[in-house]
Amino acid sequence: MENTLSSAEGRQDSLPPANSGSPPHNSIPSAEGKAVGFVLVHAGAGYHSESKAKEYKHVCKRACQKAVDRLKAGAQAVEAVTAALIELEDSPFTNAGMGSNLNLLGEIECDASIMDGKTLHYGAVGALSGIKNPVLVARTLLSEAQKGKLSAGRIPPCFLVGKGAQQWAESHGIPPCPSEKMATKFSMSAYKRNKRKMELAEKVETERCQVKRGRQSNDSDLGSLGEVKGMVADEEENDSACLDTVGVIVVDQEGNVAAAVSSGGLAMKHPGRVGQAALFGCGCWAQNSCNANPYSTAVSTSGCGEHLMRTMLARECSSALQAEDAHQALLETMQNKFISSSFLAGEDCVLGGVIVLRCCRCVETSPDIQELLVEFLWSHTTESMCVGYMSAQDSKAKTHISRLPPGAVAGQSLAIEGGVCRLGSKSD
Amino acid sequence: MENTLSSAEGRQDSLPPANSGSPPHNSIPSAEGKAVGFVLVHAGAGYHSESKAKEYKHVCKRACQKAVDRLKAGAQAVEAVTAALIELEDSPFTNAGMGSNLNLLGEIECDASIMDGKTLHYGAVGALSGIKNPVLVARTLLSEAQKGKLSAGRIPPCFLVGKGAQQWAESHGIPPCPSEKMATKFSMSAYKRNKRKMELAEKVETERCQVKRGRQSNDSDLGSLGEVKGMVADEEENDSACLDTVGVIVVDQEGNVAAAVSSGGLAMKHPGRVGQAALFGCGCWAQNSCNANPYSTAVSTSGCGEHLMRTMLARECSSALQAEDAHQALLETMQNKFISSSFLAGEDCVLGGVIVLRCCRCVETSPDIQELLVEFLWSHTTESMCVGYMSAQDSKAKTHISRLPPGAVAGQSLAIEGGVCRLGSKSD
Repeated sequence: MENTLSSAEGRQDSLPPANSGSPPHNSIPSAEGKAVGFVLVHAGAGYHSESKAKEYKHVCKRACQKAVDRLKAGAQAVEAVTAALIELEDSPFTNAGMGSNLNLLGEIECDASIMDGKTLHYGAVGALSGIKNPVLVARTLLSEAQKGKLSAGRIPPCFLVGKGAQQWAESHGIPPCPSEKMATKFSMSAYKRNKRKMELAEKVETERCQVKRGRQSNDSDLGSLGEVKGMVADEEENDSACLDTVGVIVVDQEGNVAAAVSSGGLAMKHPGRVGQAALFGCGCWAQNSCNANPYSTAVSTSGCGEHLMRTMLARECSSALQAEDAHQALLETMQNKFISSSFLAGEDCVLGGVIVLRCCRCVETSPDIQELLVEFLWSHTTESMCVGYMSAQDSKAKTHISRLPPGAVAGQSLAIEGGVCRLGSKSD
Repeated sequence: MENTLSSAEGRQDSLPPANSGSPPHNSIPSAEGKAVGFVLVHAGAGYHSESKAKEYKHVCKRACQKAVDRLKAGAQAVEAVTAALIELEDSPFTNAGMGSNLNLLGEIECDASIMDGKTLHYGAVGALSGIKNPVLVARTLLSEAQKGKLSAGRIPPCFLVGKGAQQWAESHGIPPCPSEKMATKFSMSAYKRNKRKMELAEKVETERCQVKRGRQSNDSDLGSLGEVKGMVADEEENDSACLDTVGVIVVDQEGNVAAAVSSGGLAMKHPGRVGQAALFGCGCWAQNSCNANPYSTAVSTSGCGEHLMRTMLARECSSALQAEDAHQALLETMQNKFISSSFLAGEDCVLGGVIVLRCCRCVETSPDIQELLVEFLWSHTTESMCVGYMSAQDSKAKTHISRLPPGAVAGQSLAIEGGVCRLGSKSD
């Protein structure tokens, strides 16, 4: 197994220092007179065809802009994360909210979660139907829990699933959305294609069993099966965009971090299946710096939910990012705690991706300069991962589709890239 | 805040060495001619009245016996854990399976999970209705996932919730059980009592708001509210047995560990609420020893689901148990990663309990003796915790209701106790 580094030094796409731009309009000034903040989004680790690359980049750009608009209006990280994630969910091209993968029964069931690095509160929904923006329910669960206990000392929930989650959402002012409005032409045709693929695969299995039972297992007997298997393989080639979970991580002008993730889940999943996007420690993580941790960290994941759950990848990345070299720490985590994880022994294809950031107050600058140093990275074992990022001082977001180098094997190799951004300005 | 140690040295209730008893009947012999294995169960951290203590102890005893019967029949840890947990779920006195707490709508929705320390596979269900033994569904999810991919390369689920989980269970041969058969006289009367308590509390809140709006907030105005509040407090006194999640941890004769947990969740929870019993890393943990970890560890938790989730207590305990002194490690974890956890800042009452074990092959014994050294502990911040334990060589289980010492404040203090057991025999 080989690490495939598409960025040998791991430092590319560095943003210009945030204080190089002109002051933004409509900003709530920071202590030094300029709003600051940074957002990094992903539109999934999976396979992004060249033909659809433009759409994915567009939605990442719009999502970044939404977060920055909120940051400029003085919002904290959690608000900015939510705004960006709603934009990603609303895109029919991503596998989250509108346009989510359909399950075995042709229904949409979404997972989403959000974490506030300042309070360490977390809100999540799983297998949620009939709500356009699952992250909004997770966000509302988080803020309701922060208000304290319910009547008669009952502890407010942080994780709701299924019908109960939908009812809770509606009783908290989040309007229902008919499922048929959330399905798209693309998700419907993918469902039909997947259904045919399953039927073919099951036919292959049945025929194989019949051949075995007849003790006629020579090559010629398997000829007809080979044909069917070829069709299945072709279908797989055309359908690898099914892991496009979306996620957002943000640091605000006070240095608070927040993270969120949202997913329609695996195509043709069993009804009621919940993936990493709903699970604490697995889908996203955000934790402000504290005595024990010099860095504030935020992480959002994408990929095969079961792989990301069983490796608890979001939390693992967050812990690792307290090491001196963020790039090396993420590389080793992806290699040792994901691709080669003992929790996934026997899995020959481990599919996932992460976006991460860490930040700390710069100490090397002079006392009249207040700066936040943000290091951000993405890494994936899937064919590609679409990301976008922007600081509050940038006029527009940068977007990028990161790909494994030619010849690298998805599920066994990884790509890692990132950048550094300084937020803040001279107190002049 | 003070640690209340009901066992100053942390070593009480030590079992006799396993080789002191007579050989069990019907055993699959270990390499040295005797079946070995150990089980520790809990019937919840909460409040166990003296009047019900006998029932709790009985069910713990029966659960231990079930696990030992399976171990003697040569079963691995996962099978033994499941057998014991089914016994605990079937008791109408525990808050799991039969007799589970009812939710806001008077329905039963259960959470359960299981983890196999050998393969590190995990299976879980959340908000599951209409199935008598939720752990059986979790167990079946685990074993189905171990078989590899589904048709067309689909990844098998490890976590299912709600209606989908129920359908999956039935399609995998687990019979449905009408909800009305799972409710008990006790759970129904607790529901009515809780409903009244909520209504009273909401009345207090409404009256308080009216008083505030009228700017008449002197003491006499609050007199009538005080009366209602007193009634609510009385009700709380009578109803603190609502945290009785159950759990089991086992080590088998090969030294494999497994853990499981099952819960009806908090009384009057919102429909769809999922607690720690379903969540990876939060409800239970089992991990065989490996290069990095000298000890095999197993953990099962009980208590307030939201507190146990946000602190990921099961996994934290497992990691801590790799330290030299298990008792000290658990004490520090309960104190620093639970009661004083930064994830629960602002919570003045942190309620939970754990049972843990760790084991390793004894190195100090002579080459003709094969021994497993098992250290086991329980700790809780709740008023009490009911546990039972048994080795395959014991004729019957020991049971114990651990209580905080008089004057210790539940949610702020802890009790910790445990023992040591040597499993194995001379190869004579």
